[in-house]
Formats: sequence, C-alpha cells, structure tokens
Amino acid sequence: MKHKIFTLVLTTLVAALVGCGQKADSAKTAALGKPMTDEPIQPINAANVSNPALVQLGMQLYFDPRLSKSGFISCNSCHNLSMGGTDNLKTSIGHKWNQGPINAPTVLNSSLNVAQFWDGRAADLKEQAGGPIANPGEMGFTHELAVKTLATIPGYVEEFKKVFGTDKITIDEVTKAIAAFEETLVTPNSRFDQWLKGDKNALTAQEVQGYELFKNSGCVACHNGPAVGGNSFQKMGVVEPYKGDSKAEGRAAVTGKDADRFNFKVPTLRNIEMTYPYFHDGEAKTLSQAVEIMGRIQLGRNFSKEENADIVAFLKSLTGDQPSFKLPQLPPSGPDTPSPQPFDAKPVKK
Amino acid sequence: MKHKIFTLVLTTLVAALVGCGQKADSAKTAALGKPMTDEPIQPINAANVSNPALVQLGMQLYFDPRLSKSGFISCNSCHNLSMGGTDNLKTSIGHKWNQGPINAPTVLNSSLNVAQFWDGRAADLKEQAGGPIANPGEMGFTHELAVKTLATIPGYVEEFKKVFGTDKITIDEVTKAIAAFEETLVTPNSRFDQWLKGDKNALTAQEVQGYELFKNSGCVACHNGPAVGGNSFQKMGVVEPYKGDSKAEGRAAVTGKDADRFNFKVPTLRNIEMTYPYFHDGEAKTLSQAVEIMGRIQLGRNFSKEENADIVAFLKSLTGDQPSFKLPQLPPSGPDTPSPQPFDAKPVKK
Ligand code: HEC
Ligand code: HEC
Ligand code: HEC
Ligand code: HEC
Ligand SMILES: [Ca+2]
Ligand SMILES: [Ca+2]
Repeated sequence: MKHKIFTLVLTTLVAALVGCGQKADSAKTAALGKPMTDEPIQPINAANVSNPALVQLGMQLYFDPRLSKSGFISCNSCHNLSMGGTDNLKTSIGHKWNQGPINAPTVLNSSLNVAQFWDGRAADLKEQAGGPIANPGEMGFTHELAVKTLATIPGYVEEFKKVFGTDKITIDEVTKAIAAFEETLVTPNSRFDQWLKGDKNALTAQEVQGYELFKNSGCVACHNGPAVGGNSFQKMGVVEPYKGDSKAEGRAAVTGKDADRFNFKVPTLRNIEMTYPYFHDGEAKTLSQAVEIMGRIQLGRNFSKEENADIVAFLKSLTGDQPSFKLPQLPPSGPDTPSPQPFDAKPVKK
Repeated sequence: MKHKIFTLVLTTLVAALVGCGQKADSAKTAALGKPMTDEPIQPINAANVSNPALVQLGMQLYFDPRLSKSGFISCNSCHNLSMGGTDNLKTSIGHKWNQGPINAPTVLNSSLNVAQFWDGRAADLKEQAGGPIANPGEMGFTHELAVKTLATIPGYVEEFKKVFGTDKITIDEVTKAIAAFEETLVTPNSRFDQWLKGDKNALTAQEVQGYELFKNSGCVACHNGPAVGGNSFQKMGVVEPYKGDSKAEGRAAVTGKDADRFNFKVPTLRNIEMTYPYFHDGEAKTLSQAVEIMGRIQLGRNFSKEENADIVAFLKSLTGDQPSFKLPQLPPSGPDTPSPQPFDAKPVKK
C-alpha cells in the first residue's frame, strides 16, 4: 500500500521535480570533460523525495490561504514560487496590509541554510513554518485555529490520515508537511552548475571572468558552498558601516551579544536574479547596486563598471531549474469550516 | 516557425488542459449507452486552443502581481485557480485591504456567460479584464502604468513580440491574452456530464433524484445550458423579497431601468461546491442554505431536509476537471522596472 501511493505520486510530482534533471545532467557531464573540484562553490543536488504523499500535502498547505485569519494569505503570497520564492517587495505585506519589518528571503534552497530567518532564530524549516501562521503581521492566525480549520475540511482529514496514520491533525504535522515540501524546493542545473560539472560551454567568457573576480576579491569568504551563502552569520558593514533605515539588528536579537549586532545570515546567491530587491531591508533595487555596496562595505573595493557587470553576469548564471509542478488543487471547506475573518466590522449598511 | 511554437506549447500546456480528458470521455460514452438529449443542461466542451502561445502569455499575466500597484495582487489572488476560481470570501480583499462591495464570481466557465459581472456591465472577458487592473479597490493601478511596467520586463517584451509581432505592448494586447487564457478555464467531464453522455453509473440514485427535483421544481428555468446558468439576468427574490445588507442593485446599474432592480446575472452552478460563499453578497455560507433560500424566494417552495440534501448532492456532481497546468514562471523585472508601491509613506525610522 505504501508502495502504491509512492509510485502514484512519484509519477505526477517527483518525475518533474527530480528525475529528468538528474539524467540529463550526468549524461552531459560524461560527454563534456572533467568536473571542477576544489571550487568554493559546489553544484546543488536535486531533491531526494522519500515521502511523496507528505510532500504533496505540504504543497497544498503551502498554497492554502485558510492557514491565515483572513483566508487570503498563504505562504505562497510572500514566497511566490512563480517569482523565485519571494514577493519581490522591499518589505512584505501581511494581514490587514501590515507593512513587514524586513525583506522576505526566498524559500528556494532554504533547506541548505544553517538556520532560518535573517537572524537565524529558527533552527530549521519545521520550526520556522509555525512562525508566520501565528504572526499577527503575517498570517494573523493562531495554531489552534489553523488546526481547527483544517480538521473541518474533509479532504485534508483524509490526507492527514493517509500520511500520518491518525485522525488528529496537529500543528506539528502541519509544519512537518510544509517543511517536507520546502525541502524539495532546490534549484539544480543552473548554467554555473553545468560548468562546474565540466561543461565548459555553459558559461560565457564574461561570466567566467565574473566568477574569477568573485573568488579573487573575497566574496567567496562569505558566499560559498552549494547555496553560495546560507551557512554563516556575518557583519553587514565590515569595512564601512551600512546605512539604512531598518530597525533590524540581526543575530544580536537571538544571542543578546553586542558583538552580533548587524550580523545577518549570509543570504544564498542562488537565483539571485529573481529575488530583488536586495539586503534585509530591500534597499538595493538592482543586482548591480547590491554588488557595488558589497564590494565597498564588506571588502573596501570599488569595482569598475566592467568589473561590476562581470560579477552581475556571473551571478545571473546561478539561476537554476525552478520548482516545476502542477498548480495544486485545494480540498473545499466543509459546512462546519469557520469563515475567514478578513475584516473587523460588518460591511456598512446601506 | 509558427508551427514549432504551437507544437512546443501544445505538449506542455494543452495536452494537460484538453487532450486527455477528451479521449477518455468519448471512449466511455461509446462503451456505456446513449447520451441524453432533450435535457435542459448540456455537457461542457473541452477548450479549443487555437493560439497556445497567446494562452501561455495570458496565464502568466493572470498570475502576475505586477499588474497591481502594490505588486502583491494578481487576478489569481481573487480568482484562485487552486480554489475553484474564487477567493472563497464573502466580499473580496483588494488594494490596501479594501473591502470589496460584492462576492467574486468564479472565472471557471466564465467564457460561457452572456456578459461579465453580476450586473453584466462588461460584454465579454476581454472587456472585463481591463476593469480590475484600474479599479482602485482591486488592483489599484492604471492601464498606462501596467503597460509601462510590462514594457520594462525583458521576458515579456520578447513574448509579446512573439505573440503579437510588435514591439509595442498595449492594454488591448494584455486583456486579449488574459481573455484567451480564461477561455481555457472550462471544467468538462464532471460526473453529471459523464451521466448526460450515457454513463448511467456516474451518478448515485440520490444525485439523479436531486436532478429530477431540480428540473421539476423549476430551478432549470433560470439555471440551464452548459454552464447551468450564466445566460440571463433574473430577479433575486421573485416570490419573496431577498433581504440583505448589500447596496448592489444589479442590472439596473447598467440599464437605468427600475424594472431591472435586483436583477442579477444567474450564476453558473458548475463547480458550485467550490465557490462558497453564495449569492452576490456572499451571505449564504453553505450550499444547503443557498438551495433553501432559492427554493423559498424564487419558487415559493419549502424543501424538506431530504429534498434539500438531494439537490445539494446533485449540485456537487457538477464539479468538473479543474484547470491543470504547471505553476507558471514569471519573467524577472529589469533594472528599469518601476518598484511596486504598496504603501504610501516610507517605513518609520528608528
Ligand atoms: C506576510 C508575508 C509572509 C508570509 C505569509 C510568510 N512569510 Fe516566510 N518570511 C517572510 C519574511 C518577511 C521573512 C524574513 C523574516 C526574518 O528573517 O525575520 C520570512 C522568512 C521565511 C523563511 C526563512 C528563509 C531564510 O532564508 O531565512 C522561510 C523558510 C519561510 N519564511 C517560509 C514561510 C512559510 C512556510 C510560510 C507559510 C507557513 C511563510 N513563510 C509565510 C514573509 C512571509
Ligand atoms: C564579510 C562577509 C561578506 C562578504 C565578504 C560579502 N558578502 Fe555579500 N552578503 C553578506 C551578508 C551578511 C549579506 C546580507 C546583508 C544584509 O542583507 O543586511 C550579503 C548580501 C549580499 C547580496 C544580497 C543578497 C540578497 O538576497 O539580498 C549580494 C548580491 C551579495 N551579498 C553579493 C556579494 C558580492 C558580489 C560580494 C563580493 C564583492 C560579497 N557579497 C561579499 C556577507 C558578505
Ligand atoms: C480584489 C479582488 C479581485 C481582483 C484582483 C480581480 N477580480 Fe475579478 N472579480 C472580482 C469581483 C468582486 C468581481 C465581481 C464584480 C461585479 O460583478 O461587480 C469580479 C468579476 C470578474 C469576472 C466576471 C465573472 C462573472 O461571472 O461575471 C471575471 C471574468 C473576472 N473578475 C476576471 C478577473 C481578471 C482577469 C482579473 C485580473 C486582471 C481579476 N478578475 C482581478 C474580484 C477581483
Ligand atoms: C427566477 C430565476 C431563478 C430560479 C427559478 C432559481 N434561481 Fe438560483 N439563482 C438565480 C439568481 C439571479 C441567482 C443570483 C442571486 C444573487 O446572488 O443575488 C441565483 C443563485 C443561485 C445559487 C448561488 C450561486 C452562487 O454562485 O452564488 C444557487 C446555489 C442556486 N441559485 C440554486 C438554485 C436552485 C437549487 C434553484 C431551485 C430551487 C434555483 N436556484 C432557482 C436565479 C434563479
Ligand atoms: Ca530579496
Ligand atoms: Ca461565491
């Protein structure tokens, strides 16, 4: 039985997410010369899906606005998988049009992060996923009401039972499923990865030059590993202080240590072309601006126009295969499902 | 060349939307007895896609929040194709959390409507699609700014050129593409349609009984045709006045005629299980309530509990194949793309 579900969902979901990419990849590598080793950046691996039914449930929950008080905001509202897993806004719009305090990072490749959030206050994706549901400025709900809502939706009751073998839906199951879905949101097969794997034609001369400059000028000290970032907290403003309007103090909010003020998790630079605007406050509109600022305040370097363009060209080669799946269908509410509460008062009478 | 694009998009998009359903359908019909003719309801036909590249572009625009001033709201925000093409809210949430005046109808099968909107003020889907973009309470943008934004997005410039053969993006092209996508949003192959086509096992005895009651008690006078509605304007409250809080006066807003007060477009009952809450004001939470009210105020009938349940069971058999396509990927903004403007003021300084 377990096997049957596996095979079924595998065909519809995982084939698209994983299968094809992998095969094409290794064929190419074999044909086209030796993979690069000893590089500070490594290729991203395709997702390894061990429980497709869990992933499918997590996908539905990720897209379901009924996890919010208003019935209007889902994870996908702010981490839109049509747009690189972000909202492309300086700071997010949340419940009742609340203006968020910080730029929404992408969920793509977030499973590779050392911890979640700019300040790393969540250890992993499962811990993170509980946050926004109950955040008054994001989804504005409570875990209790979210679970109560799901428990009145016949389609979910059935799915949770299949996946978890129990009649009781819990927030623990909800976040587990969402995290399992998020773990599939990796973006292998970027042109840069093809190049790393030995396909010397995958990058242009300018892109290779940009990569060399990225290595030689010291960007890789912080942006390295498969995610080209995501694995440490670093000071924003090493050489020169960063001037912004945001109140965010970074890692210090978690550790309480003064030394951690303005230390932020180094963001992944995978798919960076899609995750504008940049920095925790979203103040850098273009990639060119972000590179200029990084060079200056982290490394004390003023890149020439050409150097800046070369690095930008390299960074754009980091865009990988975007998540590819059918728009999920959500099970309809039942007669006892509480109505969403987007507004406080009743509409004005005529 | 045209052929090549056709073949390509056909494989990825149209096969899923159209192909499979049709084949399975006719095979079944052939095997299982005579189709029902002379019924007041006819089966829905699968979409006939003549220009797949246009449809693909329209799909992207439909999902693109950059058509709104905030960069947050797309057509899919209020007509969510994961949820029956509606937002499942009493009245919609728009720009800056504006509380809309009326319930959002589904876009599914909306191409079958005699006109668009509850009062029919738009002649067709193309005319309709311009409305929400410039509506201050919906997407809050202007046609000029929407077009200007698209024209700075390199991926769109290329696609519009391919589809329309011109370098100039116009609102006319935008609404044409969105309408072409919407025309594919039909939902054939419901169990009721299978039954109409001759598969007598497609419905339960209760569902058939509900259909008989739906015909005999007079519902089909207004809810008929392939969309089971959508083809006329009718008084809400024929036998007994409808009591609601909404200011909407229906068709009279278009014709100026007193006789048209509280005449609304008869909604399609296709996928009605998914498009709760019901009526133009969204005041009926459940299908059972909606059926009770319709019987009483349109026909002067008080259905028994069993009769109500039978009709509800029949109505649920009208859920057809939901649109099935891969989550679209949107082309990233360019360096000159204007930033979205979700908030008036700058964030408060610390
Ligand atoms: C209203 C907008 C909004 C909604 C809704 C939202 N998020 Fe977020 N998300 C953000 C913002 C803003 C941050 C950054 C917060 C911070 O670091 O302090 C974030 C951070 C994250 C991160 C951490 C990524 C990283 O690299 O640190 C993950 C993962 C994530 N969200 C997933 C989700 C999931 C899953 C949901 C739904 C259950 C969700 N988000 C709902 C705005 C949102
Ligand atoms: C000392 C560590 C360090 C070095 C060196 C460094 N960065 Fe960063 N980088 C960071 C941190 C930390 C952030 C996040 C800062 C913030 O948002 O406040 C960041 C953010 C970025 C961003 C924006 C990412 C986003 O999603 O917002 C880009 C692009 C970037 N860096 C590129 C570079 C380039 C190019 C170089 C070399 C010229 C470089 N970085 C050098 C630590 C570093
Ligand atoms: C903020 C919510 C919202 C947004 C955004 C929105 N709509 Fe609507 N839509 C509505 C509401 C509410 C109505 C009903 C208005 C009326 O009848 O007066 C409606 C009506 C329609 C109808 C008429 C259906 C029928 O049966 O009469 C269509 C078609 C439609 N919208 C398509 C779109 C498209 C295409 C877009 C994007 C360009 C869009 N909508 C954006 C809320 C929205
Ligand atoms: C005289 C015309 C007429 C008759 C007869 C009629 N309806 Fe309706 N029906 C309408 C109109 C008009 C509306 C939309 C009213 C509104 O929203 O204000 C509607 C709405 C509905 C809705 C809600 C649809 C939605 O999406 O909101 C349902 C369900 C429904 N009718 C079922 C029935 C049933 C069942 C019967 C028979 C018992 C019936 N109708 C008889 C005209 C009619
Ligand atoms: Ca960003
Ligand atoms: Ca409705």
